[in-house]
Amino acid sequence: MTLSDYINSISPLDASSMEMMKQRQQKLAKPPGSLGKLEDISIRMSGITGSVRNEIKKCRVIVCCADNGVTAEGVSSAPVSVTAAQAVNMTKHLTGMSSIAAFFGDEIEVVDVGIATPYDCDKIICQKVMNGTGNIAAEPAMTRSQAIRAIMTGIDRVKAAEKDGVDIIGAGEMGIGNTTTSTAVLSALTKTDPETITGRGGGLTDEAFFKKKEVIKRALRLHDPDPCDPVDVISKVGGFDIAAMCGIFLGAAYYRIPAVIDGFISAVSALLAVRMAPLCAGYLFPSHASVEPGYATALKELGLSPYLQLDMRLGEGSGVPFAFRIIQGACAAAADMALFGSESAIDDGYLDKIRKSL
Amino acid sequence: MTLSDYINSISPLDASSMEMMKQRQQKLAKPPGSLGKLEDISIRMSGITGSVRNEIKKCRVIVCCADNGVTAEGVSSAPVSVTAAQAVNMTKHLTGMSSIAAFFGDEIEVVDVGIATPYDCDKIICQKVMNGTGNIAAEPAMTRSQAIRAIMTGIDRVKAAEKDGVDIIGAGEMGIGNTTTSTAVLSALTKTDPETITGRGGGLTDEAFFKKKEVIKRALRLHDPDPCDPVDVISKVGGFDIAAMCGIFLGAAYYRIPAVIDGFISAVSALLAVRMAPLCAGYLFPSHASVEPGYATALKELGLSPYLQLDMRLGEGSGVPFAFRIIQGACAAAADMALFGSESAIDDGYLDKIRKSL
Repeated sequence: MTLSDYINSISPLDASSMEMMKQRQQKLAKPPGSLGKLEDISIRMSGITGSVRNEIKKCRVIVCCADNGVTAEGVSSAPVSVTAAQAVNMTKHLTGMSSIAAFFGDEIEVVDVGIATPYDCDKIICQKVMNGTGNIAAEPAMTRSQAIRAIMTGIDRVKAAEKDGVDIIGAGEMGIGNTTTSTAVLSALTKTDPETITGRGGGLTDEAFFKKKEVIKRALRLHDPDPCDPVDVISKVGGFDIAAMCGIFLGAAYYRIPAVIDGFISAVSALLAVRMAPLCAGYLFPSHASVEPGYATALKELGLSPYLQLDMRLGEGSGVPFAFRIIQGACAAAADMALFGSESAIDDGYLDKIRKSL
Repeated sequence: MTLSDYINSISPLDASSMEMMKQRQQKLAKPPGSLGKLEDISIRMSGITGSVRNEIKKCRVIVCCADNGVTAEGVSSAPVSVTAAQAVNMTKHLTGMSSIAAFFGDEIEVVDVGIATPYDCDKIICQKVMNGTGNIAAEPAMTRSQAIRAIMTGIDRVKAAEKDGVDIIGAGEMGIGNTTTSTAVLSALTKTDPETITGRGGGLTDEAFFKKKEVIKRALRLHDPDPCDPVDVISKVGGFDIAAMCGIFLGAAYYRIPAVIDGFISAVSALLAVRMAPLCAGYLFPSHASVEPGYATALKELGLSPYLQLDMRLGEGSGVPFAFRIIQGACAAAADMALFGSESAIDDGYLDKIRKSL
């Protein structure tokens, strides 16, 4: 199957299951709407799985790791070797996300889609497109066919997850320099001035921060990516990590598996997926609000509002394990709460009174 | 021991353990500060337990249930009988909070500190002070000694939790009419106009919402509670649930067990505890932002910022199970992440470079 085949085969959420869950939410013994975002979660989960009752057991964080040639411009606070080192550390549960995910028993899959420096670790799934992208300040990040290959890798990882019986996935990344590429992609897609959406990533001096913004502007001027062609945007100013995560979100929609967005880079990748396949949006759930300024822009475009405000800016998928818990809890409440009119419930006068009051 | 004995015996967080965790956070292989609020959590957890490494296993939600005489004024959307019905349902894991907590294996303890209507359930811990409070619009909620008795009940529940080896507790409530009493308490404590902090609770008509604000103002005028005497505020315009939750937060500090605040009513109770014993603040962790307008006022007074934005307004302690997960994750990351300079870590140039950039 080609990328277009996947995109064209994505189907909408199951309307009748969603309607059944909507009605169930109205019957749960609580003031209507009082479960807030948990109600939306349960309704969309029903639309994704086609089942009114859902229990999420097997959770997997898929981390796309790749390097970015633009680091040559001095836009990052960390050396390129950190990508490989942290990718390896993730397989050992020694990083932020992986230590948290391991605590909760979530699976962690680390995928190399373009790490530039060598490493020795057979637990990393090697799907390397190239040893890092081109420097977007001077050349395209990659060719169009390389972008498609990286996207297809993401879709393949969801296919594998579906085969393994995974109930929910989340997309994380590791790639020094990837807030620069993500900001360039977001700027191109939304026609937003990089000045307003560029952040300090892992931590930049004023000088490096200024340079980062200049590099993004230069790359956009140089390549003039077509905002109506997400693959063009990825290949000119994106990264292999972004492309693969975009593929994960497309694959999630194709294979009808709920997918959690992590922080800024993950959100930009989700936006790319939704631009390619608008129906994909229904399958996506946010997690935490990144402190990167572009995050809010991306989430607004996606029509989502984050569940968590933890002031984190670590990347990796570090918000994903917490979002898994929220979605698990939302499904548990929707499945297990008493219904008005049932044996265990409150007299129906409660419901009538509340209904009248709204 | 008297209430004063408990209050006077609360000691500060352990400074040396906190300092050790602060230093450890600086050594973890990540950009400094990038774990956001998870770093503060891990530092305060070390200060509470006196151990640098912490693992949270046994979690308990303690739910204080009581009725409020002020419901006679028509300030609530639900009938009084709902308090008893939902208290019983909690023991069966049929309510919002209890279904979520049960999914995660958290313990649920339901305490009757003043339910007005009869029920048949031996799983509820009966510590009833009275069958509901007086109607604060016309009379004090309770006597001073009744307020102290309800506070002591909360402290006793933490004593029991400590005996059971509970690692973390959370305080929830069930009590029709308790957003009215909580708003009156918060208004008295912070000298805030009830107009600005009164919300619609479970769901009120415009007419009932107007009446609720009038009732709160009338109660405050009638009783003129002393803002410097939290027990006076509780006894005049509070509730048994609020008093007992206040006791839970005091007990948490006394027994050095971390305690999670749920929504609005829980936050007001925490503020009462902190007004009685300012050192108590270090032991408290927020969970989700309630949509009740007074919540933000209470959290600001407590110097806390919520972890979750779920638009929930259910009460019961429904945000607590999610906060437990966040605190568990924060402890896992702090304990398990690689350190700079360790075998598995990144070359120290990373750290130096980041340090210089900040």
